[in-house]
Amino acid sequence: MALKDVRAGIRNEEGIATVLGILKQSFGERFQTGQAFREQHAHTTSYLTSQLPDGVVFVESADDVKAVVKACAEHKVPVVPFGVGTSLEGQVNAPSGGISIDFSRMNKVLRISPEDLDVTVEPGVTREELNRELRATGLFFPIDPGANATLGGMTATRASGTNAVRYGTMKDNVVSLTVVTANGEEIRTARRAKKTSAGYDLTRLFVGSEGTLGVITSITLRLQGIPEKIGGGVCAFPTVKAACDAVIMTIQMGIPVARIELLDDVQMRAVNAYSKLSYPEKPTLFLEFHGTEETVALQSAQFAEIAAECGSDEFQWTANADERAKLWQARHNAYWAGRALAPELDGLSTDVCVPISRLAECVVETQADIVAEGLLAPIVGHAGDGNFHVLVLFDGKDPASVGKVEAFTARLTKRALSMDGTCTGEHGIGQGKMSFLEDELGGAVDVMRTIKKSLDPDNIFNPGKIFRPTS
Amino acid sequence: MALKDVRAGIRNEEGIATVLGILKQSFGERFQTGQAFREQHAHTTSYLTSQLPDGVVFVESADDVKAVVKACAEHKVPVVPFGVGTSLEGQVNAPSGGISIDFSRMNKVLRISPEDLDVTVEPGVTREELNRELRATGLFFPIDPGANATLGGMTATRASGTNAVRYGTMKDNVVSLTVVTANGEEIRTARRAKKTSAGYDLTRLFVGSEGTLGVITSITLRLQGIPEKIGGGVCAFPTVKAACDAVIMTIQMGIPVARIELLDDVQMRAVNAYSKLSYPEKPTLFLEFHGTEETVALQSAQFAEIAAECGSDEFQWTANADERAKLWQARHNAYWAGRALAPELDGLSTDVCVPISRLAECVVETQADIVAEGLLAPIVGHAGDGNFHVLVLFDGKDPASVGKVEAFTARLTKRALSMDGTCTGEHGIGQGKMSFLEDELGGAVDVMRTIKKSLDPDNIFNPGKIFRPTS
Repeated sequence: MALKDVRAGIRNEEGIATVLGILKQSFGERFQTGQAFREQHAHTTSYLTSQLPDGVVFVESADDVKAVVKACAEHKVPVVPFGVGTSLEGQVNAPSGGISIDFSRMNKVLRISPEDLDVTVEPGVTREELNRELRATGLFFPIDPGANATLGGMTATRASGTNAVRYGTMKDNVVSLTVVTANGEEIRTARRAKKTSAGYDLTRLFVGSEGTLGVITSITLRLQGIPEKIGGGVCAFPTVKAACDAVIMTIQMGIPVARIELLDDVQMRAVNAYSKLSYPEKPTLFLEFHGTEETVALQSAQFAEIAAECGSDEFQWTANADERAKLWQARHNAYWAGRALAPELDGLSTDVCVPISRLAECVVETQADIVAEGLLAPIVGHAGDGNFHVLVLFDGKDPASVGKVEAFTARLTKRALSMDGTCTGEHGIGQGKMSFLEDELGGAVDVMRTIKKSLDPDNIFNPGKIFRPTS
Repeated sequence: MALKDVRAGIRNEEGIATVLGILKQSFGERFQTGQAFREQHAHTTSYLTSQLPDGVVFVESADDVKAVVKACAEHKVPVVPFGVGTSLEGQVNAPSGGISIDFSRMNKVLRISPEDLDVTVEPGVTREELNRELRATGLFFPIDPGANATLGGMTATRASGTNAVRYGTMKDNVVSLTVVTANGEEIRTARRAKKTSAGYDLTRLFVGSEGTLGVITSITLRLQGIPEKIGGGVCAFPTVKAACDAVIMTIQMGIPVARIELLDDVQMRAVNAYSKLSYPEKPTLFLEFHGTEETVALQSAQFAEIAAECGSDEFQWTANADERAKLWQARHNAYWAGRALAPELDGLSTDVCVPISRLAECVVETQADIVAEGLLAPIVGHAGDGNFHVLVLFDGKDPASVGKVEAFTARLTKRALSMDGTCTGEHGIGQGKMSFLEDELGGAVDVMRTIKKSLDPDNIFNPGKIFRPTS
């Protein structure tokens, strides 16, 4: 099902054939061209059509990556990095074919420096693996996009998720990268000092570049101390506006919540059905507080006051880990609960983000739009950042249903942009949002194109992503 | 006095003459070519030789900036943005001549959104002006590089300063920029959402680019709530190692200090002499805590324990504003106090930054080097970030003295790099640290050059900065 105008790229058949030969020779069993491998490395869970690479290479070192990039650069063949395939906007598709670089064997934690609160990992390490390895140090890596994504993928898409409201996004938590550039050499974007003014911020340029400027080979990340105490709470509201207003007041008062998640009534219904729970089917906020026994209690009390002022039901909270897990149960699996509302349908997850003062307005208008169009579309939001997801369920085989969804997402994006927001808070542009990027940033996209062209003149790095073809 | 090998650029005499005529015609009295104006806009307070622009234009709007850039781009004439001239590495020098753009009349706060905790300003607003304008809102802009710099200059050099340890640097506090690029058009790097994954992070690319990629015309900044309570304290240590160890433990324990500044014994002697004070002339830490009455007291108590463990004298602290000002008196004017140790000499302020675990080692080795060389060089550090300044006093007219300083800074930089640190934590590369940048980042500097060339093919934006000539 082709939901968007994603043009198939032009294939360089001769170059691809040559590179397939070279890689087979160099990598033997670590290079695979079978259909199953190729399908597994294209975008299979997204609403976008899968576009398969011609081969998959299982790299084990930066030298392997250099060898692949050198071969592909010489023969002008696309290179598409692959973590675990949890991206949502077609980032791992290969519209012009080429080579998928699988990072599952580059999954070592290279160095932990508890005394500097940082760590260096290979790109294939997942965030859960990292946190398991860190446990003994009393430190953790806070970014949690939901899926157990690789840190390479999270870096490439500038991921964030539930506790970005407190700890920031990947942009704020990457100290330094090594990257293989188009000449097949590896550069290091920064040293390990906590701050620097040494030249252009290449670290931040590669964070969020979605594989289009080079291939990341290692990542140095900032770590946080595991909080002495974690509190959790949940609270239902009469309207989604009341819930958003409570979020806005919480942020404006500077209460350092670690997570503040919004689930709308449709999503709560989905969750009850999916996990056999009995939450009130009303707009609900899920909160987490990190601190000491005292500060967690203080923050909870402050939030309870705000919630009551906004007309909420009772705010239930706890600093007990088991009880917290129970209170938060509904938030887990929200995506799959949403999908289960209509398992036969396809799902598209939007991720606009607006200035916090406009959040209530944006969510309320979007809900009205959903109702007016008769769409089935639960909402989950990282509300503290002004970021929310609409999971639109639709029939990809029905052109009318597809048209309706396209029109809805276009209106949603236009609404967010009119409020000075962005079309994507955390999923990236990929193949799905190219035209929205132009609407959002206009002439700045030409500057991005110029940079892309200068660093990747033959367009081998993840072609067909971020930028709409100019022709 | 030419301390470094800063090559004079090649002047495009014909282009410059043409642009002088154009700007005189367009800007009238707002364009000045007199010697006094030109001298005032070149680098006069730095250790580097002043290199004067050919004219100074006082812009009042983004349209003015566009007109200047268009004229200069057409005739391939350098453009050097000027805030108030507090940069330290020759960033406002004009080695190839050209036009200085003075931002003193673009000094309006364009928009304050207390509800979104952000503000948009013109580049000529200074941080003190901004904080005066913000006072009624209960918010403040936290970055404090010492000097009352403009926000345009602070953005361009990725400034930080005393409370970056808590609030981050300019990289963390700029939401979005408007920038006039080489085609004379203005782009906007991002919307106002708190986070985004929409394409390359152009905001962070321009932050710290030292005017070499375009001219900033407005800046949207994140704001912070003014803390309910501010505590301050001061504490002397027997050795600089003991003081550094206390800093390291404080950071590793996650105590959220707002400032933690180190002054060594030489600097304390300078301060006593300059301000007629009677602090113990021992390595001393100055601290600030932001929070509530309770958290400020708690943090102070936690720090006092650490300090005692490191063998400090008594930690004196207060949450009273007047007493705090008194305790902190020595930290103010540290730079001028240092210079006053030998008013007849020149001063060079270094700013290496190392991973916090290496701070004590780096400072101790550097002090030993100072002693061995018989240099007069007080040390002040933003110790919580692993960043410290050595103010080296030397005689710029004496080649032996100059040679000694050059050798010292080269050793200091090499030492910091060997500890995985950076040659510049906050002053930038400018003209003074070009060769250090190459030592620090190697091949990554070629990537920077490629970007520079793609966005500024005629090298009109602040030429002769950051990059060593390649020829």
